[in-house]
Amino acid sequence: MSLLPVEEALARLLAQAAATPIGECEIVPLADADGRVLAEALIASLDLPPWPNSAMDGYALCLADCMGEPLSVSQRILAGQAPGPLQPRTCARIFTGAPLPPGADCVEMQENAEVLADGRVRFGEPLRAGQNVRPQGQETRVGELVLAAGTRLGPVELGLAASLGRAELAVRRRPRVAVLSTGDELVEPGLPLGPGQIYNSNRSLLCAWLRRLGCTVVDGGILADDLQRTRDALAALADVDLILSTGGVSVGEADFLGQVLQEDGELTLWKLAIKPGKPLTCGHYRGVPVIGLPGNPASTLVTFGLLARPYLLRRLGVLDVEPLAVQVPAGFAWSKAGKRREYLRARLEGGRAVLYPNQSSGVLRSAAWADGLVEVLEDRTYAEGELLRFIPLSELLG
Amino acid sequence: MSLLPVEEALARLLAQAAATPIGECEIVPLADADGRVLAEALIASLDLPPWPNSAMDGYALCLADCMGEPLSVSQRILAGQAPGPLQPRTCARIFTGAPLPPGADCVEMQENAEVLADGRVRFGEPLRAGQNVRPQGQETRVGELVLAAGTRLGPVELGLAASLGRAELAVRRRPRVAVLSTGDELVEPGLPLGPGQIYNSNRSLLCAWLRRLGCTVVDGGILADDLQRTRDALAALADVDLILSTGGVSVGEADFLGQVLQEDGELTLWKLAIKPGKPLTCGHYRGVPVIGLPGNPASTLVTFGLLARPYLLRRLGVLDVEPLAVQVPAGFAWSKAGKRREYLRARLEGGRAVLYPNQSSGVLRSAAWADGLVEVLEDRTYAEGELLRFIPLSELLG
Repeated sequence: MSLLPVEEALARLLAQAAATPIGECEIVPLADADGRVLAEALIASLDLPPWPNSAMDGYALCLADCMGEPLSVSQRILAGQAPGPLQPRTCARIFTGAPLPPGADCVEMQENAEVLADGRVRFGEPLRAGQNVRPQGQETRVGELVLAAGTRLGPVELGLAASLGRAELAVRRRPRVAVLSTGDELVEPGLPLGPGQIYNSNRSLLCAWLRRLGCTVVDGGILADDLQRTRDALAALADVDLILSTGGVSVGEADFLGQVLQEDGELTLWKLAIKPGKPLTCGHYRGVPVIGLPGNPASTLVTFGLLARPYLLRRLGVLDVEPLAVQVPAGFAWSKAGKRREYLRARLEGGRAVLYPNQSSGVLRSAAWADGLVEVLEDRTYAEGELLRFIPLSELLG
Repeated sequence: MSLLPVEEALARLLAQAAATPIGECEIVPLADADGRVLAEALIASLDLPPWPNSAMDGYALCLADCMGEPLSVSQRILAGQAPGPLQPRTCARIFTGAPLPPGADCVEMQENAEVLADGRVRFGEPLRAGQNVRPQGQETRVGELVLAAGTRLGPVELGLAASLGRAELAVRRRPRVAVLSTGDELVEPGLPLGPGQIYNSNRSLLCAWLRRLGCTVVDGGILADDLQRTRDALAALADVDLILSTGGVSVGEADFLGQVLQEDGELTLWKLAIKPGKPLTCGHYRGVPVIGLPGNPASTLVTFGLLARPYLLRRLGVLDVEPLAVQVPAGFAWSKAGKRREYLRARLEGGRAVLYPNQSSGVLRSAAWADGLVEVLEDRTYAEGELLRFIPLSELLG
């Protein structure tokens, strides 16, 4: 069976996401909107700045009045004040951010102006119209689209909404995501470890990550390797938008999650051309989408970051779901072409991508050590210094 | 007066930060530790994995037993089970993640094994010792340092702590940061705008950002341009770790914050070789550190991201406070050398950095549009295609 290319898997997931949008909205104060997805178009309701204003502390004047003679100061304008019109052949004392008085067309900074004994001000430097003036509407004009619906909100976007006077925004409601782990070998941290058991790391990884993506996490716990208990556990997950499981799903022996999905939903097993992370499960349980990630922690990281994360964001209407990637030179040689696209945990050292020595899918320390993932394409080798795509982990983890 | 280079300003701030650490710790469950700073060294208390285990579904055997004859299956080992020793000249049915039985030294995947009618298994492919076996201690050995104190915790680090069985971690307590805005022209979003007034965008920008950095934000509101009210407002900020103000601080007329700091603390005005963002204030109020950022939103963004953010992280003991940067080719020519280092809001298009058309410090849309900041050094020009440092915004905003 041929492997499914990463792009094709992503395209299928995004199409499924677009077909099952999480469309409901809520109005939240700006302080609660970080990380959420904007559900309205943010249109400027005012010009920003609303009037031309001074970029400096200094003097506002009309260039035509400045014929070499000192000018007397006819008003003093602090930020927050509304100035009167500039009297002809005078200047106005003005401070940063204060509105320019009608009739003025430039500002000279105070360092370049000489205040005479009689209080008049002499301007030495040649002046030009518009200097040190921030024009009205420099940031935006009333009616302009400032942020499109589907924008993910972060500190910058919240600052922008505030600058337009918005105290609240319409955002998509939080997705409810159930996180399930499968495997009788798993034990939750804090409990004693029996023979043959290991601690469940994926739950902590995914719960923190999902919260960064604005999700409400429903902890589905560890599924027992027992058919009826697996049926009961899934039936208890009412009212979630996505069931995210980690740990192998197959149709083989001792896989009860797969069995329950076949009974009461649908199950597709993908073999992806991705490393780490080959097996991925898609399907639904009574209509609720299910994504089954592989259970090795580095595989969970890569498949969640590159596939499930964009899927979730697209369900919220985010258009731009691709992480930023840059080209970096390989600080290593890659001599054995592989059938799967590899996402290697790498650091940038001296501008080059160097690899964590152990790239096993079972090793999560590689990702704690790494700055990002370098992408090694299928069926090719790389010489040291050749350019590779590099995705900073910060782009994936937020 | 010569301008203070960015590195020098950062070095001074980091030295101040190291001298005023926020050292108190608290124990938090993993679910509450995202974004916090680890206050203990995370040492492996067990080997990970605790025993050699199978990377595949297949058969475990001892290479020396495999002389071409089929082997009978003497036990079946699921993940979570503790196997008995492998009987000589037999193999064990084994599943991914299950411990290797003592005596076995390799695993053949089921796809490459042939189950005969009598139940014995024939192995066709040549086998090698250790194949499909994840060795004990592959991720870590007991006693190894897995995460150093001072590590910022994210989803990956929480997964790693969970894999070591840790349900709680010691983290630095949350810094309490007071955010003040200065300027009579400022109005909070949601309120009507009077003549000469603009909305306060920096508070929303900084509050969301500080929360991402694990801080508790104390909203100091907008300082009135009035000496006594400024004194009262500062005196009300008991028990904070940092006072962060935005909007010009000077010792000039109508600057009451500067006046109060001179009365009851200390005030240093820096002129930084940075654009946007030249003026930066450092000092303290009754011993509480004060950082005054410039008030234009793009200046606030750049100076907080490049100076105040690392300062805060260093106070929490974070060693690695520098954002990741990469080299990208300029998608523009820069023909006018400047005296200040510029941080231009840029997008990567076709791998090149292209600039938002309006780089005014008053324009925040540039940052909502941008993928990151490109760094244009002092006193030099750039031809199109020359390499520049590029800092993804995702590196700064988390």
